[in-house]
Amino acid sequence: MSDLTDLRDGMRRFTEARDWSRFHDPKSLILALVGEVGELAELFQWLPADSAAEKAREEPLHTRVEEEISDVLLYLIRLADVLEVDLADAATRKIESSSAKHEPGHEPTRYVLGE
Amino acid sequence: MSDLTDLRDGMRRFTEARDWSRFHDPKSLILALVGEVGELAELFQWLPADSAAEKAREEPLHTRVEEEISDVLLYLIRLADVLEVDLADAATRKIESSSAKHEPGHEPTRYVLGE
Amino acid sequence: MSDLTDLRDGMRRFTEARDWSRFHDPKSLILALVGEVGELAELFQWLPADSAAEKAREEPLHTRVEEEISDVLLYLIRLADVLEVDLADAATRKIESSSAKHEPGHEPTRYVLGE
Amino acid sequence: MSDLTDLRDGMRRFTEARDWSRFHDPKSLILALVGEVGELAELFQWLPADSAAEKAREEPLHTRVEEEISDVLLYLIRLADVLEVDLADAATRKIESSSAKHEPGHEPTRYVLGE
Repeated sequence: MSDLTDLRDGMRRFTEARDWSRFHDPKSLILALVGEVGELAELFQWLPADSAAEKAREEPLHTRVEEEISDVLLYLIRLADVLEVDLADAATRKIESSSAKHEPGHEPTRYVLGE
Repeated sequence: MSDLTDLRDGMRRFTEARDWSRFHDPKSLILALVGEVGELAELFQWLPADSAAEKAREEPLHTRVEEEISDVLLYLIRLADVLEVDLADAATRKIESSSAKHEPGHEPTRYVLGE
Repeated sequence: MSDLTDLRDGMRRFTEARDWSRFHDPKSLILALVGEVGELAELFQWLPADSAAEKAREEPLHTRVEEEISDVLLYLIRLADVLEVDLADAATRKIESSSAKHEPGHEPTRYVLGE
Repeated sequence: MSDLTDLRDGMRRFTEARDWSRFHDPKSLILALVGEVGELAELFQWLPADSAAEKAREEPLHTRVEEEISDVLLYLIRLADVLEVDLADAATRKIESSSAKHEPGHEPTRYVLGE
């Protein structure tokens, strides 16, 4: 039982029922993803950095945040499906390679522009 | 067995081992997500729209695409964790509400600027 | 007479009249920029690649495109102002350095994943 | 003397000398813009919100910021050119319409999710 697979299948059914796969080339899906990331960003843009998390855990913001994060996830899942990427597997391997690359005890890359 | 929960836990361990949770406020995580979406967009920007999917299913592009899609997913999972969003549940509900909103047989919204 | 300077001054007056400079730290402005880029992307996401330009030069899309491109520009100008970047000068130098870097007769970088 | 017109002309010459106008359809240009916005976001993602502006006004960050802001501007100018948008005119009108819409004395929209 994989929830990423379930969501992928849900998006497949949604897309096929509407015959929208003709719109789902990668460049279009990335633009749609960018649109949803933009909506997510707008929810947070003017919130003070140090109270943003607290405000976003409470209503009315929490429901909006859930929706926008979900939209980003669903377009990402759809893109992965179109490109034959096994998301769970790829992301698991990415955590492993990042763990090997970033030794504990250091600042995140980019923090001091060091990469 | 939920793979989204597994990935969330993997990101928690990764973050805690490096004491990076102090960097993971929502605005910073969204900027990091935007950075990864940018890297994904760069892979596709100059590809012809009608052969982009095919090219991205083959090497050397496929491995790069897997990595960038994974990076986007992992920051999104981390953001959801910080904001106490149950991603699998929220995304499942979003597919349901979108299915109710967009009746089969219509073009996707925005296609003709109709919203 | 510099139009980038005029727009910068217009944004300064707009911001000061509303006492919004307290919201305009760089991370917040970049998130706002991302929001506007998202709105721009949404206008194009489902358009066919080969007729998108033509459709966007005609109404009703053209006016929407003008607005969203302007929003992106205005947040970018505001960000440059906050960070004391002389946009006209920096962008002129960037064209020069890109011209030196990309010899005519080659494909754009990233096109074949070569960077 | 318009610097936006000068930059537009510089980008035209750059593009034509390389015969890259065939890559510059709107969807591709927006993806390229997204890539540059992502690079800009990466420079700021882990900086503390309250010292980000100060850090970005000093080297080594300032030069990087100049470059990334310029890249965003140049793709935006190129997109406007392809879509026959007069950027200076459109942005001037946008400041005017925003000034009429947002009466001084109020919080920015989205700040309290009010739009």
